[in-house]
Amino acid sequence: MSVPTSTRQWVLSRHPTGLPVLDGPEPTFSLQTVDLPPVGDNQVLVRTRYFSNDPAQRGWIGNVKPERMYIAPVKLGEFMKSGGIAEIVESKAAGFEKGKLVTAFALGWREYAVLDAKDLSLVPEVEGIKETQYLGALGFTGLTGYYGIKEIAEAKPEHVVVVSGAAGATGSMVVQIAKKLIGCKKVIGIAGGDSKCAWVKSLGADECLNYKSPTFRKDLKAATPDYADVYFDNVGGEILDMTLPRMKQGGVVAVCGAISAYNSTEGQLLRNWFEVISMRLQIKGFILLDFLAQGKAKDTVMELATAAKQGKLTIGDENETVVEAKFEDVPKTWLTLFEGGNTGKLVTKL
Amino acid sequence: MSVPTSTRQWVLSRHPTGLPVLDGPEPTFSLQTVDLPPVGDNQVLVRTRYFSNDPAQRGWIGNVKPERMYIAPVKLGEFMKSGGIAEIVESKAAGFEKGKLVTAFALGWREYAVLDAKDLSLVPEVEGIKETQYLGALGFTGLTGYYGIKEIAEAKPEHVVVVSGAAGATGSMVVQIAKKLIGCKKVIGIAGGDSKCAWVKSLGADECLNYKSPTFRKDLKAATPDYADVYFDNVGGEILDMTLPRMKQGGVVAVCGAISAYNSTEGQLLRNWFEVISMRLQIKGFILLDFLAQGKAKDTVMELATAAKQGKLTIGDENETVVEAKFEDVPKTWLTLFEGGNTGKLVTKL
Repeated sequence: MSVPTSTRQWVLSRHPTGLPVLDGPEPTFSLQTVDLPPVGDNQVLVRTRYFSNDPAQRGWIGNVKPERMYIAPVKLGEFMKSGGIAEIVESKAAGFEKGKLVTAFALGWREYAVLDAKDLSLVPEVEGIKETQYLGALGFTGLTGYYGIKEIAEAKPEHVVVVSGAAGATGSMVVQIAKKLIGCKKVIGIAGGDSKCAWVKSLGADECLNYKSPTFRKDLKAATPDYADVYFDNVGGEILDMTLPRMKQGGVVAVCGAISAYNSTEGQLLRNWFEVISMRLQIKGFILLDFLAQGKAKDTVMELATAAKQGKLTIGDENETVVEAKFEDVPKTWLTLFEGGNTGKLVTKL
Repeated sequence: MSVPTSTRQWVLSRHPTGLPVLDGPEPTFSLQTVDLPPVGDNQVLVRTRYFSNDPAQRGWIGNVKPERMYIAPVKLGEFMKSGGIAEIVESKAAGFEKGKLVTAFALGWREYAVLDAKDLSLVPEVEGIKETQYLGALGFTGLTGYYGIKEIAEAKPEHVVVVSGAAGATGSMVVQIAKKLIGCKKVIGIAGGDSKCAWVKSLGADECLNYKSPTFRKDLKAATPDYADVYFDNVGGEILDMTLPRMKQGGVVAVCGAISAYNSTEGQLLRNWFEVISMRLQIKGFILLDFLAQGKAKDTVMELATAAKQGKLTIGDENETVVEAKFEDVPKTWLTLFEGGNTGKLVTKL
């Protein structure tokens, strides 16, 4: 195969106000072909193998000020940002041989890309762990759960912990870290559907509540007779609102995501805001990048991988949903995130 | 004057769902006359001179579970809780002589009451400071502002601080403590009306914004070109929502009150919730009682009184609005709190 000189890429053509639109006269993204630059020193040319699909990407394409974002938002006409795993096709960087797989935060929705070696990590070759796990359970989402539950929420063995989005990529790791690594007294997952809940319980959750059930509000109350010390919030919205009255005095809400709000123009309606005052709650937003900047991620990945090998964490096929797709369908696959269909990390395989 | 054997009192007759209702077929409160118990050992009989009017009182009369309140809520048929200043009419408690004034958190909307001496504090007789100030600037509201801005928000000299309800009892103290005691770089008050704002600026605020102005949103943006480190929130609602996008990364929102929400059945609509995540904000609810339990209040009152004597704090007639009212009009006077009419602490003088 000759080395390609051009690539297809998905660019942002319009800032969406609600849910991104794929068809019709004003689509959010458009597909284009561009020339590839030559491979310079300390650079590699890669071919994309997998894309990471993350709700946070929705936050990068709104019409917001760069200074208010934790990473530079995607401008109109720029390729859509996305992390992923790619294979090295050509290399001018020592230690990055042709044929090796790398994880790249700056990959973007591109079939091929020329990237700086400093922005890449070689995918570790550890027995029994699939490469795609380094996008999820052993990648950014797993690390988000780890630092969120340990350093932001400061969950302790004596704590009752509630985790929303518990069947999601981050939530499924939070449940396991809380129950099996920290040893929390009670871990209650919240997920959408009975089969998702069954999986969350198999991961170690003491209970898992189906938020689509008509009895959910009652179930949440019944599951927290002594209230909760920690709420790890992946979803925001009505579930956050219903959880506030179930928090113990001085409880901590670690705000990791607000998937219910990303595509909403309506805002977050909190009927139980007064609980923040009367119960002296602490609501703490956080971003993984702050922890990555501390340089501890490599050790943490090793801690998690070791725990997995020892059977203390379940990191297997059920931690991820790998969807095979053509490059034309990359945005469509990503959008299924917001339908709540996936279990664990949603990965697109090209 | 003979010692009274009965008293009039206002009791809770219905839990309000929105704004309390004074007239019509289903009033929130009703007036009744009850016998007074005999004065026991270590008790006093007092005659009410002043009532403290506090937005928090609204939170005590909702139909909520006692375990979810920081003080026991008022039950149907019980007298309405209220702090106040009363004069001792008869005493069987050492150190509490007839004729002395006391502050009493447990006074309630009663003309006369028999109280335990342990629940009373003698009003200090300090030159130049009026007795009513011990209900406001030197009472619970001033202490709330002090601990909120110093220990919850941890405001520092290099900080930009925004204070809502800045012309209110707590807010007017927060502005002064932030600017004149801590020495914050910039203190921005938010208040309802130009004359209130003029007063807030006279207290030391660098700027004061009138939230009733049609240009308020723009004004808030213009006042925070480098964003704010601390937001001391007395009001909640739309002003909280508008302030979230003006917070600096890692900023702290100290949630002291939510006056806009107390009488609302609609809840708190936060369109800018995502800022909590992207800017890693910390939202911290707090309650004065936790600090009182630490036993530091007496020293803090002395610190504030000393600062006032040295001219570092303005504690005068403009810190309070004393409204003379008949006992029949006590609820009506209290309700004016929610109309935003008062400047500083609203006190009812019987």
